[in-house]
Amino acid sequence: MKIGDTYHRSITLTENGRGIRIIDQRALPWELKFVELHSANDTATAIHEMWVRGAPLIGAVGAYGLAMAIVDDPSDENLAHTHQQLFETRPTAINLKWALDAVRDAVHDLSPAQRADAAYARAAEIAEEDISLCKKIGEYGAEIIRQLHAQNPQRPVQIMTHCNTGWLATVDIGTALGVIYTAHDAGIPVHVWVSETRPRNQGSALTAWELSQHGVPHTVIADNAAGLLMQRGDVDICIVGADRVTRNGDVCNKVGTYLKALAAKAHHTPFYVALPYTTVDASLATGTEIPIEERSAEELTHFTGPANDGCLTRVRMTHSVALNPAFDITPAELVTGYITERGILPKI
Amino acid sequence: MKIGDTYHRSITLTENGRGIRIIDQRALPWELKFVELHSANDTATAIHEMWVRGAPLIGAVGAYGLAMAIVDDPSDENLAHTHQQLFETRPTAINLKWALDAVRDAVHDLSPAQRADAAYARAAEIAEEDISLCKKIGEYGAEIIRQLHAQNPQRPVQIMTHCNTGWLATVDIGTALGVIYTAHDAGIPVHVWVSETRPRNQGSALTAWELSQHGVPHTVIADNAAGLLMQRGDVDICIVGADRVTRNGDVCNKVGTYLKALAAKAHHTPFYVALPYTTVDASLATGTEIPIEERSAEELTHFTGPANDGCLTRVRMTHSVALNPAFDITPAELVTGYITERGILPKI
Repeated sequence: MKIGDTYHRSITLTENGRGIRIIDQRALPWELKFVELHSANDTATAIHEMWVRGAPLIGAVGAYGLAMAIVDDPSDENLAHTHQQLFETRPTAINLKWALDAVRDAVHDLSPAQRADAAYARAAEIAEEDISLCKKIGEYGAEIIRQLHAQNPQRPVQIMTHCNTGWLATVDIGTALGVIYTAHDAGIPVHVWVSETRPRNQGSALTAWELSQHGVPHTVIADNAAGLLMQRGDVDICIVGADRVTRNGDVCNKVGTYLKALAAKAHHTPFYVALPYTTVDASLATGTEIPIEERSAEELTHFTGPANDGCLTRVRMTHSVALNPAFDITPAELVTGYITERGILPKI
Repeated sequence: MKIGDTYHRSITLTENGRGIRIIDQRALPWELKFVELHSANDTATAIHEMWVRGAPLIGAVGAYGLAMAIVDDPSDENLAHTHQQLFETRPTAINLKWALDAVRDAVHDLSPAQRADAAYARAAEIAEEDISLCKKIGEYGAEIIRQLHAQNPQRPVQIMTHCNTGWLATVDIGTALGVIYTAHDAGIPVHVWVSETRPRNQGSALTAWELSQHGVPHTVIADNAAGLLMQRGDVDICIVGADRVTRNGDVCNKVGTYLKALAAKAHHTPFYVALPYTTVDASLATGTEIPIEERSAEELTHFTGPANDGCLTRVRMTHSVALNPAFDITPAELVTGYITERGILPKI
């Protein structure tokens, strides 16, 4: 994906091929800050503190983190320990577990001396595969946008999304936002309603920034405005990403997704979930079994942004106690379809 | 209502009996700032800029504003002009129009010399009546809370609300929040889920502050978390206020109300609207006819709060274009009942 005129991806290897360079997303949209991670501990911090976020991206970053641990100590014990350490950084998105399992399985039967190279190879494969999965998701999804535009060519297709599901949430391209980029790049006129996505504002901070960089027309709205816009007929389709999808098709995604799905249902607005197979958790029957991460109340009670002098300043929003669950569950019956690398599926 | 140990109400007369003293709610919860309004222009600014807000309160403030204009110039022309000026300050809440009409009608047949006193008398009547309406709403509503507690005495009644509907939104007591105060004061254990209410944060800034002053247990949540809490069974009842209710019972209220109503319906959570008769617009058949105020995008793109040094500081949240509609419509079929001064009505 491009930032200005330069091609970037969310993970690149450092010069020695053993560390990774990521974007510290907490600084966006105000600063484009690259950070190098050189150990499993670095990686755990980066995932836990949300320097990186987005289910596919934390999977790929976690995979590299496990590889870094193996360089330091390729024993079975360290493998199991670091797998657990990284797994515990974020409990909800299943891609992280999938990727950690994939690296572990790739090295498990090898001798300690062979493990590091194999782990980096598998991590690189995970990252490359994520890009090709997103590419296919984008292409399949863009067809839906094309059809919507054909049905109502008088105006740009009005797409509502939630949180950030773009190249910042993946290794490149994105899932739901990847669909939007692919449609836009194919010349289909689109306009994106970007929910700010409280409490961390991934919509107004990350999605709006990505769309600006890519030149996609968009408007930021309060999460609260989603229902009104659908009432007014100002939304043709909702497309969101997912952090975990269970066997029955229930979708765990950023908190607030469920409210949009309910409004979409009430207004017969198509509601699609874009996801790669790495987001499916076949071990769980329904969404109620998914652990919902609860994050610091400070994400809700404080906000950091540039003041008039340009300095990033943290201000308080309330004195009261706050509760900050990070995800909710959208039941399968509210989902029109799943946009996957295998095509558009009515069921998962 | 009490702030600390002192009794306050949202409007009091100044010493000469011709101006009013209000709280500049923009400074809350950080500062309790009283402001005097001495002219219709002052009043128009205070309503338009949301120094005061809340449908019943802007009705009462508007009534006094019209009375102030009559002191200066009691002519029919000035009466009509100022009525229009004040009416245009906020387009959605119908209480403002109701109160302005009431003052106009009270003075219309009088000689110019008699008009000022009659206008102040009518404005005072409106303010006093608002308190007695809220008192009755509180008493009827508290019975619902009492019944919920009897059904599940193991835990405090879990009440979700939206925006601010307390004594700051009325002359005293409040509507939806008045129900909560009345229940709490009657010894019924309650806990309130306070939606922060983006973009102006009336929930985290005003409702949470009011509840803190009154000692009512509460927790601030992101608006986005409403669906999850209902999914988890953590909400026994939703009670909201209204800015305008049409003949068929459609409810126009702070944007985001509709999403809560949809979630309540999905989870069979009772969804009540607390309102005095002054919020009913019998001239409109359905909610789709109500004009939805669109406010400045800066309410969404900037936030003001105390920085670490305690100084109120305005920070930016996004560079992107934003749209800021302030209300949405909850269709009557999502409303369990209307808590009014006449009792709990299944229909309006």
